[in-house]
Amino acid sequence: MKAALIGSRRALAVRSSDVRSLLRYAKDPAMVSLAGGLPSPELFDIEGIAQATEHALKQSPVECLQYGMTEGQAALRHALVGLLEKRGIHATVDSIVVTTGSQQALDLIARALLDEGDTVVVERPTYLAALQALSLAGATYACIDVDDEGGQVEQLLALAPDPRIKLVYVVSTFSNPSGTTMSRARREVLVRWAMKHQVVILEDDPYGELRAAGERVESIYSIAASIPGASDWVCYTSTLSKIIAPGLRVGWLVMPPALVELVARIKQAMDLHSSSFAQQVGAAYLESGRLPGHIERVRTEYGKRQVTMRGLLEEAFGSKLKLRHSEGGMFLWGEFTDGTNTRDLLQHALEQGVMFVPGDVFYAADPQGNAIRLNFTSASVERLELGVARLQQAHRLFASLTKAAA
Amino acid sequence: MKAALIGSRRALAVRSSDVRSLLRYAKDPAMVSLAGGLPSPELFDIEGIAQATEHALKQSPVECLQYGMTEGQAALRHALVGLLEKRGIHATVDSIVVTTGSQQALDLIARALLDEGDTVVVERPTYLAALQALSLAGATYACIDVDDEGGQVEQLLALAPDPRIKLVYVVSTFSNPSGTTMSRARREVLVRWAMKHQVVILEDDPYGELRAAGERVESIYSIAASIPGASDWVCYTSTLSKIIAPGLRVGWLVMPPALVELVARIKQAMDLHSSSFAQQVGAAYLESGRLPGHIERVRTEYGKRQVTMRGLLEEAFGSKLKLRHSEGGMFLWGEFTDGTNTRDLLQHALEQGVMFVPGDVFYAADPQGNAIRLNFTSASVERLELGVARLQQAHRLFASLTKAAA
Repeated sequence: MKAALIGSRRALAVRSSDVRSLLRYAKDPAMVSLAGGLPSPELFDIEGIAQATEHALKQSPVECLQYGMTEGQAALRHALVGLLEKRGIHATVDSIVVTTGSQQALDLIARALLDEGDTVVVERPTYLAALQALSLAGATYACIDVDDEGGQVEQLLALAPDPRIKLVYVVSTFSNPSGTTMSRARREVLVRWAMKHQVVILEDDPYGELRAAGERVESIYSIAASIPGASDWVCYTSTLSKIIAPGLRVGWLVMPPALVELVARIKQAMDLHSSSFAQQVGAAYLESGRLPGHIERVRTEYGKRQVTMRGLLEEAFGSKLKLRHSEGGMFLWGEFTDGTNTRDLLQHALEQGVMFVPGDVFYAADPQGNAIRLNFTSASVERLELGVARLQQAHRLFASLTKAAA
Repeated sequence: MKAALIGSRRALAVRSSDVRSLLRYAKDPAMVSLAGGLPSPELFDIEGIAQATEHALKQSPVECLQYGMTEGQAALRHALVGLLEKRGIHATVDSIVVTTGSQQALDLIARALLDEGDTVVVERPTYLAALQALSLAGATYACIDVDDEGGQVEQLLALAPDPRIKLVYVVSTFSNPSGTTMSRARREVLVRWAMKHQVVILEDDPYGELRAAGERVESIYSIAASIPGASDWVCYTSTLSKIIAPGLRVGWLVMPPALVELVARIKQAMDLHSSSFAQQVGAAYLESGRLPGHIERVRTEYGKRQVTMRGLLEEAFGSKLKLRHSEGGMFLWGEFTDGTNTRDLLQHALEQGVMFVPGDVFYAADPQGNAIRLNFTSASVERLELGVARLQQAHRLFASLTKAAA
């Protein structure tokens, strides 16, 4: 069968993730990967998860193994209400739909809201896999720039009112890829704009609990709850991937009532429901009381790695690499000021035994060629040192070659 | 937010499953449900699954908990190759993509192949949730009728060649809802037609191992493998839901190479991958050697229930209810010959404390009002007796009311 013969238009338009094509390099144990977005496996609370699993299978075997509700297991949604309460988000069980990771939340919202050619507002740069999910639903894009206070929502005010704008997508805290957090003031501007123009906001918050420094900023969802009529326009998604384990694939959406019904109907057609077993394990872990201590350990270690990496990069590149301000999460974002194209740099980096993601993949339009995303959570401090040293060496070689060619 | 204000056209067009709206009745413990498609929970091999889970977490904790490949965990795909071999299907690891239940396989194939308005050939009746997934991708339908030898593929030969026909969807063995198995001869006709017209066949086989009587029929996938050029046009999907436990949500697709790449790219945008944890548990269970004995127990018990229910129905309704021939699976399909409309009958049945699914929901077009789908796997033999007695009583009351009104 020739590939060209088959395939829907949208499917063929989905670009393969560059991150995905880097995976084969990551298998080499000598390679230092600063490319992925993996949590550190040595921090997994394996013992706690094993206990939670045993508990779930003993206490509620049929709930673990039988078909369940499309919206998600009751035990998990109850536990999530409690988790959200600690984040200042007052959700009800009925406002939550459990998803297969928060990636599925993006796909669900895209399918629920977008017709072919509808417009989504995204940050530049924004999360690559969000672009894939949105494009699969036929999205076109309007972009707002990012500075050290996150997405510049003021740029929305300059947009002409357009009924085809259906959605604003933001990673509000410790963004992937930029690492930035949107300021409280900007969040409120965004909420008021969305309400006025009847556009849904999807607040993606996988990293919020991984704060290394600074003070928590109120969620867009919470801000909307305090403005009459605004909460009808805000959805919030998060996941257990970064605070417990990605392999569970347990994420969730918090939504206004009209969207819950619509999203549940789509999800039923997509996969009936996410793994009951994984959901019950997640619920049991949340109920076990181990999460706060575990998050504390992860926060501390990631914080250390972030500080280390920032220091190493500043030492290695000085003013040649401008780093975005970040107080947590999993990524540092840099922009070379010496004309380095990071896609070209990547070839040299791979030869030196270090990998990263060139920043241009994170743009819905007009990609910046000088940007780089660096992950600091999956490698140890020692490996980070090795990785940055190799990156510096690759940059040196690349710069000298460029110079020679000029 | 008014529901009318938001929602993509396709999302709003997905009809809510009638099976789903029946769920609230199913919560009443006095209700005998012949409506759902649930495996019998008392047959779950809880001990075996607990052991497999413990083994998976002990032997490969990081594989259980970390991000994995979109295509699925290597251990599971290896185990599935072995499982498929026993079904006469020679698959390679690289031809398999793991899905969140086989429902996601339908959604993936629909998104991979269908543009808005493309045509899918389905049986009438066909699996309700397949219609939901296909419609979400914008499908229109061409239908073939079903008799005791499954879908009447001869009707395809009468169809005018049409480049918009992109897919044929069949539940080949013990179909949901009709319980029928497509004959070997028809399978070969179907394969040759699909190859000639360059149309993909999706063979959905969740129930094939639940054979109560008769001889196994070679899969469409295997038949195609023996006809040069035909295997490029056949995809096969199955699931652990009916042979181990649905709560794992582990299904899979076997596909020709060109489709594997396309489907994996879409799946990455949809949810990155299915639960690694559930996949590793499934793999460990398959490796444990317990499956053959477990399937034998399930087959025997379901076989007993099927024979019991058929006997009870024949006794209760005689020639008023024509039952389709079936040799296994989970459903009996009947058509009333006395003018009974089963959607009207359902109201009386619910009052009597028994529920079923009216057959009209299983048609892509021209629904039959006299048909009924009855599940025999989720209730015990005693409950089946009670259920059929209540159904008979409901039918009597309904018939007398209809007579009085006439």
